[in-house]
Formats: sequence, C-alpha cells, structure tokens
Amino acid sequence: MDAKVRLHLDQPLGAGQPLTLAPEQAHYLLNVMRLGPGARILVFNGRDGEWLAELAPEGKRSARVLPLAPTRPPAPPPDLWLLFAPIKKARTDFIVEKAAEMGVRRILPVQTDFTNAERIARDRLQAHAVEAVEQCGGTFVPEVAELAPLARVLDRWDAGRRLMLCDEAAAGAARALPDPAPGTAPGPWAVLIGPEGGFSPAERARLHTLPFVHVTSLGPRILRADTAAVAALALWQARLGDWGAVALP
Amino acid sequence: MDAKVRLHLDQPLGAGQPLTLAPEQAHYLLNVMRLGPGARILVFNGRDGEWLAELAPEGKRSARVLPLAPTRPPAPPPDLWLLFAPIKKARTDFIVEKAAEMGVRRILPVQTDFTNAERIARDRLQAHAVEAVEQCGGTFVPEVAELAPLARVLDRWDAGRRLMLCDEAAAGAARALPDPAPGTAPGPWAVLIGPEGGFSPAERARLHTLPFVHVTSLGPRILRADTAAVAALALWQARLGDWGAVALP
Repeated sequence: MDAKVRLHLDQPLGAGQPLTLAPEQAHYLLNVMRLGPGARILVFNGRDGEWLAELAPEGKRSARVLPLAPTRPPAPPPDLWLLFAPIKKARTDFIVEKAAEMGVRRILPVQTDFTNAERIARDRLQAHAVEAVEQCGGTFVPEVAELAPLARVLDRWDAGRRLMLCDEAAAGAARALPDPAPGTAPGPWAVLIGPEGGFSPAERARLHTLPFVHVTSLGPRILRADTAAVAALALWQARLGDWGAVALP
Repeated sequence: MDAKVRLHLDQPLGAGQPLTLAPEQAHYLLNVMRLGPGARILVFNGRDGEWLAELAPEGKRSARVLPLAPTRPPAPPPDLWLLFAPIKKARTDFIVEKAAEMGVRRILPVQTDFTNAERIARDRLQAHAVEAVEQCGGTFVPEVAELAPLARVLDRWDAGRRLMLCDEAAAGAARALPDPAPGTAPGPWAVLIGPEGGFSPAERARLHTLPFVHVTSLGPRILRADTAAVAALALWQARLGDWGAVALP
C-alpha cells in the first residue's frame, strides 16, 4: 500500500466524480505500471489535497479514475518564490526539481546582465516540477513563470514582498534573516540566487539600494547556483518557513 | 586574471620549488587550455592554501609548475563529516560534489539495511570531489572513504563526535540544533542522511538510543537524499559552522 503511484491531475477532485486520464497517463498506468481495474492510486491537483482513487480502464489506451476519499489535506508551502538565472540544462532542471521539493509557490527564471539564456523550455520545466511533486509526496505544484529580465521583474516588484539576496560578493553587507514573529506568518518572501558569473556592478548597485532586499551570505566558499538555491531555501524554510518549528526555532 | 585555471596537486607547495605535473594535467593545460610558457595558474594541495604558479612546458606533453607566492591561506572547513547511503550514480556524484562545495572534512558512503549499493567507485568519487573544489575556489579536499556498513561505522564511532540525524519518519523526536557556544568551535560533528527507502526499524531504534545522535527534521515535505544532504549541511553550517557569523547568528 505504501508504494502507490502518485499522479498529478489538472482537474477538480471530489468523491465520486470520475476523471478521465490524459492518454500518456493512461498509458503509464495501464502499460508501464500494469495496473488493472480497481487498482488504487493517489491523485492530487495542487489545490484539493491528495485523494485515494480507483482505476477504471476503458480498453488498453484510456482510463478513468474515481476519487474515493481524501488522504491528505491541501498543504501549500509558505508564500516563497525562487528567482534564479537559468544555467546549463541539467542544473536548471535540478533547481526546478529542488525548489518543488523544498516548498516554494512560484519559480521565476530571470535574465541577468551576465546570463546567456535567451529562452527556456517553460513547459518542460513545469512538467519537471510536477514530476518532482509526484515523487516527493507533496500536494502543491509551484508555477514556473516565463523567463523575464531581472530589471523588469524588479520594476514591477511588490515592495511588500521581501527579497533574500544571496550575493557572495557582498558578504560584508550580509545580515541574518529576521527573527520569525511568534505565531504569525513571515509574509511574502522571495529568494534570488545570483548567476554563475555574478551580478553586474549595475545590478548589484540597484539590488543593494532596494528597500525590500535583504542581503545574506551562504558562507566563505563559492557555491554553484544550484547548490546555492537549495542552501538558501533550506535556511529560509528553517528560519521563517514551515520547517521552523522543528529545525531552528 | 580572474578566470585563472585552478589545479589540485598532491605535492607540497613552496616558493621556488618546481613541481612536475601528471601527464593528464599537462595535457589539459597545454593542449586543452592552450597555455604557454610563463602562464599563471593557481594551484592547491588541500594543505598549503592556494598559490600563484608559473607554467613551464617541457615539450608538448609534460610540464612543470613553479609556485611563486601564496594567494590564499589554508582554510579547512569545520570538523564536519557527511554520511550518506549511495543511490543512483548521478545523485551520488552530486552529493559528493555538493559536500565538497559546502565544506566538509570527510565523506563516508554507508550501506544501510535498505541500501542496494554493494560497492562504490571510490577513486572516481574522490576525483569528483577534487574537481568540485577546483571549480568552487576552495583549498581543502574532503576525503571520500570506502563504503562501509552503517552498523560497523556506528560500532566504531567516537562518542565525542555528534551525529545530526535527518530522519523524516521521526519528526516528533526532532530538536533544534544546539546554540553555538560563543567564541568556541562546535566540536566534531557529522550529518547522516537517510537512504531513499528510509532506515529499517532496527536501524532507527539503534540510532535513536545512541547518546551522540541529535535528531533533526528537514520540514514537512519528503526530500530526496541529495536535496536532504545539501539542506542539512546548509543548516549545520549556518548554525554551528563557518557560515554562522553572517547567516544565522
């Protein structure tokens, strides 16, 4: 019973409301996993928590599932975004996978002055986030935004959202994350990971004057962007997010 | 001058003491990087810090380097080990790379009751650690130990070394990491990441009774072992290690 298949469905989930699977999902369950009529699977849609559901094949290529009962309530992560500059494909995939595992609401790829990426495969990255959530047991899928220039993202920034800036070249300006206010949510935050080549002087100057930016350091060694993303999200989650109660009160 | 090649040499470094490069290193510098006589590179051996050195080719296939002056002092990371159960090749490589970046002294692959790995390519993993340190600007290379059963590692454990156990199935037993004692080193520690399939009941029972074990949690979502390794090392470094002064005092 433990190793049940978990499937993301982009449809409303409710007891007794049958859902039709996409052809590739039906293929996966029927022909790859070789599940038959009545097989139990877990489904989630990112909004309605996780449900136990029953498989009802319709021939060899299509199937419906019938949600039976909720197994886990919806559990959205804290209101945290991750901004990062896309790098090589494998490491970009990795950052999206890790962000989905660690609990963020949105993933925003940004072009910086020293970023080479002209485009990203947004749909592929979004599918990657879905797959990571299917595998890690989560019920919330972060949205992967379209690639946008960092300058434009900052122009449109809601100043109520604080931005944790991980800037290895500015360790002197680094401050501890604020103490969590007991019993209250930390409010909206985002983490910005610098590109592999660092920020340009103009970018750095602007970032360091923005009132919502909180400069932090990830220690004395230079971390790759993908390492920095996981490390920064861990520190934020432990200090201000939903790891805090147990890890670093 | 910024983008100088960094090379790990397993020889003592001192001003004016020429060193002979291994054939593959000479090939890399002469034929891949196309460096010529007098080219400046950075070298380190894990003990003597980082040195500026001058290249002296001897034909097309061999070369010597002459250390000129130290550029960075030796900076060993805190006395932190990482224990993990090897998983798929790519993710094992990743864990070793990340541990070398984030700053640990030793990396110990361990066999747990639910680990399939019978052997590891220790030399390849060690080379991977060297490469990660070359790229991240560090001067210390952690040792990758031979694969050993976790039970035997625990039998021989020095009780003076505390063990941060990341056990998602024991969140109820999780405690915050201790406060760092002002002005003193945290003492020897290790981080143990559970295998993908979790610990066996027998392992868990033993681990939770060992006096040097400190159970922590990495939040409410299930993390893959490679994610958990980076997250746990980040929390330890920020709380007790050499990130602490800036990140989470």
